[in-house]
Amino acid sequence: MSLTAESPEAAASSAKLASFTLATLPAKARNAALETIHDALAAAKDDILAANARDLEAARKAAADGSLSQSLVSRLDLGRKGKWDDMLKGILDVRDLEDPIGQVQKRSKLADDLVMERVSCPIGVLLIIFEARPEVIANIASLAIKSGNAAILKGGKESTESFVAISKVISSALERTDVPNAAIQLVTARDVIAQLLSQDRNIDLVIPRGGNELVRYIKSSTKIPVLGHADGICAAYLTASADKDKAVTVLVDSKTSYPAACNSLETLLVQDTALPTIFPAVAAALAAKGVTLRCDPASKAALADASLPADAVQDATPEDYDTEHLALVLSVKTVPSLDEAISHINNHGSHHTDAILTANQAEAERFMNEVDSAGTYWNASTRLADGMRYGFGTEVGISTNKIHSRGPVGLEGLTIYKYKIRGDYQPTTGYGDGEGQTPWKHESLPL
Amino acid sequence: MSLTAESPEAAASSAKLASFTLATLPAKARNAALETIHDALAAAKDDILAANARDLEAARKAAADGSLSQSLVSRLDLGRKGKWDDMLKGILDVRDLEDPIGQVQKRSKLADDLVMERVSCPIGVLLIIFEARPEVIANIASLAIKSGNAAILKGGKESTESFVAISKVISSALERTDVPNAAIQLVTARDVIAQLLSQDRNIDLVIPRGGNELVRYIKSSTKIPVLGHADGICAAYLTASADKDKAVTVLVDSKTSYPAACNSLETLLVQDTALPTIFPAVAAALAAKGVTLRCDPASKAALADASLPADAVQDATPEDYDTEHLALVLSVKTVPSLDEAISHINNHGSHHTDAILTANQAEAERFMNEVDSAGTYWNASTRLADGMRYGFGTEVGISTNKIHSRGPVGLEGLTIYKYKIRGDYQPTTGYGDGEGQTPWKHESLPL
Repeated sequence: MSLTAESPEAAASSAKLASFTLATLPAKARNAALETIHDALAAAKDDILAANARDLEAARKAAADGSLSQSLVSRLDLGRKGKWDDMLKGILDVRDLEDPIGQVQKRSKLADDLVMERVSCPIGVLLIIFEARPEVIANIASLAIKSGNAAILKGGKESTESFVAISKVISSALERTDVPNAAIQLVTARDVIAQLLSQDRNIDLVIPRGGNELVRYIKSSTKIPVLGHADGICAAYLTASADKDKAVTVLVDSKTSYPAACNSLETLLVQDTALPTIFPAVAAALAAKGVTLRCDPASKAALADASLPADAVQDATPEDYDTEHLALVLSVKTVPSLDEAISHINNHGSHHTDAILTANQAEAERFMNEVDSAGTYWNASTRLADGMRYGFGTEVGISTNKIHSRGPVGLEGLTIYKYKIRGDYQPTTGYGDGEGQTPWKHESLPL
Repeated sequence: MSLTAESPEAAASSAKLASFTLATLPAKARNAALETIHDALAAAKDDILAANARDLEAARKAAADGSLSQSLVSRLDLGRKGKWDDMLKGILDVRDLEDPIGQVQKRSKLADDLVMERVSCPIGVLLIIFEARPEVIANIASLAIKSGNAAILKGGKESTESFVAISKVISSALERTDVPNAAIQLVTARDVIAQLLSQDRNIDLVIPRGGNELVRYIKSSTKIPVLGHADGICAAYLTASADKDKAVTVLVDSKTSYPAACNSLETLLVQDTALPTIFPAVAAALAAKGVTLRCDPASKAALADASLPADAVQDATPEDYDTEHLALVLSVKTVPSLDEAISHINNHGSHHTDAILTANQAEAERFMNEVDSAGTYWNASTRLADGMRYGFGTEVGISTNKIHSRGPVGLEGLTIYKYKIRGDYQPTTGYGDGEGQTPWKHESLPL
């Protein structure tokens, strides 16, 4: 791993060259590199957390000035409960996953002595641009190495101290492995994002990890495919048939377990008939956790007798239903039917993760089929949308794209495939359904 | 199917709305629509071929003027041997394929009473822009309907008569099916491509079917993902260990069976030691088929005694090795080693389809692994790169993208997936490796 001061052009082209070597390394060599990184990071914990504390101190000052959002500060904190251990465990989890490269996904006999295979392979060069999640460096380096992809990492200024500290550790660790130095590039130069985004000849995929402004800027500024999501406006539809106590539990979890996360609940749609029955208990539990409810008139009226704190209930504006609050604020809207709930989510949501709470299976299946989102859940917390929770070992991000990878993206999202054909020099003109031609066989063969 | 005079914005938003309905149609209804289209086209063969003949006549005049390329004329010809029957057969082949929608690709138990499924679903709205392949209308309409995607089709002016004739037949056929009218839109207005390409809120994927200028223009003019390829600069590496007679057969097939196709051979790399042994026979066979060889000095010298026609051998320019001739012209270059061959292909090719001719398995495997192309073949014709030949029923195009779909794209490339989770209202905070938490199960379940 090189901490590069090279030009973006040179970084991209050297990464591309290195990607060809990395792509041919056996799994054993790639896994050994991950172990070396893990051990080096574990040994350097104190130094890295000290560097992170310096970033955090600066960020907290900026947040106090109002020049930085509180959610960004929260994301920056490597010392946050479980985060450091999760980061290290993620590296070993990735090492222990099945090798995603060289997997034969399909094999078929096109004709006698003419066999086709579809085989997984690395994408090439990844560009990862992130703001305030320093653990992304370890995650992405692990995922890139495991999947045989070169990666260029560009961090935000808020995490510079953490970035440099982690980078130095990984860089010196990788010197002791077979992974070519230029395969993982850390770009520390400032104001080079636009130049990096123009390297479409040598960079194959951009993965932004950051707030919606960063992602929107990136999506509108490059011809390279971008994997990710700008917003996480997740909704839950609370129906009258839902279990009251359990609904309280899962909605409190969805909204309050990590409000700065993209998979946190931002909108609660309440079936009109649930307003007098289940909704008041849900509202009271959320308010008790400090959540402000931005209500439409009907849901506000339903809380008139609930004796909630005065500031817990506010009037919703139309903008609230298109807003990712990333804070203890929840938009609430009353809907008369499943159709209205689905339509609201498809029009106002961000196609990330949405849930229905209901006892009615048919209703749940319709919701899951018709809501056009990466995750559609029945009686489950939107906070499940996460690569670790899905069992992918770790995640490279959550995608709301409609191609390639959707939802939490793990190793598989960092691979593509090629078709290999092994033949006996046959001319294609000899095959087909025409006169004198041999028909294609197209027989599936065992993998 | 509507032959629309609507604005591009209106076409895109009505297609999006219709896509939600189409996505919920059962396979039976989608298959019935394909059958109806097939029968209607079969019944209207004479009218459509007459319309196509008018397009063809105009195109031949334009080609004589030099204002249209000969390869485009060739692609336009629906009466070309086998093309009409292939088009009709393609529709039924697609009908008979397994339903690509609603396939459970993964199922796992995240925890007790918490089951995750990954289920295939349509992408949404496709925009297909094509020049001179009128059969694309039937292909794409079939693939879109089968895969539950809405589609907007925009044809080129060269195929207008064919386009309108086929459209009218399909449109009136679809009136008798469950597929919503707006789900397949045919845009006949001129000069609206730029406006269509700006509809990134309602169009999910662009599929250009045409020459490299069209594809390059589209790729540089939209934020919507583009599936396809600009160039097909396919190469074969002829080694000294190849079977001479068989090499002649497969290279003649690769170069001459359909020179206007993107999977035709454009570059022949010859191992230096094969120059005196195999290459002269290959060159003579190609020349006998009318192929002009653009040779480097060493390969030209090897043909000094071959008594080929005077104009069959020309000097190659550096540009020849970066050119998709799409005609009976072949660039020839001598290389000393497998490494040089791989490096030439990765630097000058278009990552489409490349072949090695050799008796040496280890050499072949290295070639197939290290050449960074959608198809890498051993002793096989580059002309195999085709959805029909791969057994996909038909194809929507050939992709050189590094994400989503690579190589010939069939139905699977028109799908994405969503994650469904069915739970019992569990809070996520209850799971993990922390104290008092329940570990995730992450057990694979049978599909």
